[in-house]
Amino acid sequence: MIPQGFTFSAVNAGIKSPDHEGLDLGLIVCSHEAVASGVFTRNLVKAAPVLIGMEHVKRGTARAIIANSGNANACTGPQGIDDARSMMEAIADSLRIRAEDVVPLSTGVIGVRMPIGRILPKIPALVARLGEDVDGFERSIMTTDTFPKIVARRAGGARVLGFAKGAGMIAPDMATTLAVVLTDAKISKQQLDNIVLSTIDESFNAITVDGDTSTNDTLVALSSGLVDAALPEVQQAIQETIRELAMMVVRDGEGATKLVTIDVSGATSPADAKTIAMSIANSLLVKTALFGADPNWGRIVAAAGYSGVSLDPGRISVRIQGLPIVEAGEQTSSFDETALHEALLTREIAIAVSVGDGPGAFRAFTTDLSYRYVEINAQYRT
Amino acid sequence: MIPQGFTFSAVNAGIKSPDHEGLDLGLIVCSHEAVASGVFTRNLVKAAPVLIGMEHVKRGTARAIIANSGNANACTGPQGIDDARSMMEAIADSLRIRAEDVVPLSTGVIGVRMPIGRILPKIPALVARLGEDVDGFERSIMTTDTFPKIVARRAGGARVLGFAKGAGMIAPDMATTLAVVLTDAKISKQQLDNIVLSTIDESFNAITVDGDTSTNDTLVALSSGLVDAALPEVQQAIQETIRELAMMVVRDGEGATKLVTIDVSGATSPADAKTIAMSIANSLLVKTALFGADPNWGRIVAAAGYSGVSLDPGRISVRIQGLPIVEAGEQTSSFDETALHEALLTREIAIAVSVGDGPGAFRAFTTDLSYRYVEINAQYRT
Repeated sequence: MIPQGFTFSAVNAGIKSPDHEGLDLGLIVCSHEAVASGVFTRNLVKAAPVLIGMEHVKRGTARAIIANSGNANACTGPQGIDDARSMMEAIADSLRIRAEDVVPLSTGVIGVRMPIGRILPKIPALVARLGEDVDGFERSIMTTDTFPKIVARRAGGARVLGFAKGAGMIAPDMATTLAVVLTDAKISKQQLDNIVLSTIDESFNAITVDGDTSTNDTLVALSSGLVDAALPEVQQAIQETIRELAMMVVRDGEGATKLVTIDVSGATSPADAKTIAMSIANSLLVKTALFGADPNWGRIVAAAGYSGVSLDPGRISVRIQGLPIVEAGEQTSSFDETALHEALLTREIAIAVSVGDGPGAFRAFTTDLSYRYVEINAQYRT
Repeated sequence: MIPQGFTFSAVNAGIKSPDHEGLDLGLIVCSHEAVASGVFTRNLVKAAPVLIGMEHVKRGTARAIIANSGNANACTGPQGIDDARSMMEAIADSLRIRAEDVVPLSTGVIGVRMPIGRILPKIPALVARLGEDVDGFERSIMTTDTFPKIVARRAGGARVLGFAKGAGMIAPDMATTLAVVLTDAKISKQQLDNIVLSTIDESFNAITVDGDTSTNDTLVALSSGLVDAALPEVQQAIQETIRELAMMVVRDGEGATKLVTIDVSGATSPADAKTIAMSIANSLLVKTALFGADPNWGRIVAAAGYSGVSLDPGRISVRIQGLPIVEAGEQTSSFDETALHEALLTREIAIAVSVGDGPGAFRAFTTDLSYRYVEINAQYRT
């Protein structure tokens, strides 16, 4: 399952606290210079590793990824940049590569300085353990995730391997999504950028758990280029990997009891369709109704109505679990409240909203909002 | 406390269900033609009474308000308009006024036809009971509100009387805010419009419980014009009434355990300040942290960062309960996690966020997000 040229490692560095157990510092190394691509949070408040990572991806090459959980290294000012660079330099020294070839990824508490004093002494052990510990690397970036998120695909003789940590938050801190996609397929920077950018909008940018955008969200893609493979196969394998990782993240949304697919069609443009879909996907009233299997379709129509997109309420139609609920803005004559309630008791919910006969369509993925979400995010960390 | 010229009444019409008890149909009548003003939901999906009420306010005069809870008369198509009109006509017939002088207000379940067959027979009793039953009218529009929202003010010899129902939702249906402001002060349509419009943005448009905009939100203001009073006094009394009603609504937000004031300053414009304030006020992560008294200021900074307003993270400063938490985008040296946690245990929370040295400022009001909110909104209505 491992793409040629990549090795993995993870250790415990007590990053969240000295007595914190479990893997929290992970490393991925490529045997030579890899082609690098990636996308980053649109939050204007960007963590230090995001600011640094954006530079790497602009340059388009990298040799290693140093990742940690337990501290986001965000809102820590110039000190945060210095701390991230000292981690990069420590890795570079022991690998005999350039510090600017190391991509940093962090997730965890905001505003607290990275415990560099505990991290740096662990770097030698981290490098010494480099091998095939794919699971270890995944565990080192997991936070409140309830299951590991690793996806492997083949593209002819080439391989694609993906990792993610979820929108499960480091209770009680920021939601952050981190994703890493590795391949050994020979591919250009431009080709890799195109694949990542063409896939992100329908995957990681189409999921929401609570609408809060993290300071650290990052997806990094590296290619070792050691294997020749047909581009269409490589593209499909990378796209499937990214989509599957995104689905795993939303499935594991904090406190989620349901995975909800929201298909909006008939909008003037895909952008309008996305705005409407995300308005529904982020509505607290919709999400709490889904948690309670409440056949309360009015909340869906209302959320479409306040999305900001111009639409004609008289042309809205809604299907839930395949049942026709609303047509031309009105409840259908066949509407059966009890039947819809029962249809909403399942774990996977499909909502289809048509707002007209335009060409714009978008599929969003969300979760319900449960007591557990409040519990996870209301708890005071000490 | 009652402005001259107005009488009130309320009855039970079993609107939500035939066996539903309690007042759910209310009436306010002015002894002659009143000057009318108002503001309505910006949701593109507008309930029938909203569409009709907007016409009234455009014309600028009214004689009566017929209000009900238990059914929003929304998403019911042309039938909804017909049902609202038949209620208006029944009131007009028994009062010998014009149907177009009756303003309808509705709140309740969406998509279900108004039970006209139960409502119309109650109109005679409703009209017969017209008198000073101010409390009865308020109770007829209350839903999950935990306390009545009535405000009375004096302006010289003139009086101002305000009613509201809260963003407590008719579980499990839409949040709706209804407000009625009555005065006997002699005032022109233009003057009344100016006062209402100049006050709404800092009051009802500055509060949020869950960010969901109802299909029925309405504020209607009527003046009988029977008393001469100085305009500045009248303006102040009406403004205080509207502001106080808005505060009562947010205080009574569903499941709320805290009233949170968010002051944003230093923005380029008041509009930018409002966008940032509402982004923080609607953040689930901020609201759950406040519920748990979690000193998690990173969520506030992050919510400002994704508001969509261009800002410099390095210039953000945050004060919570007067404590300096963030300066120049970084945690202050005086930050004391335990002290902030204790400061957050109170019922009223003040958050001040400065994003630069611009002239734009805005004050928003919100609540925390509790288990009770999920409970109220997840319950299936049968």
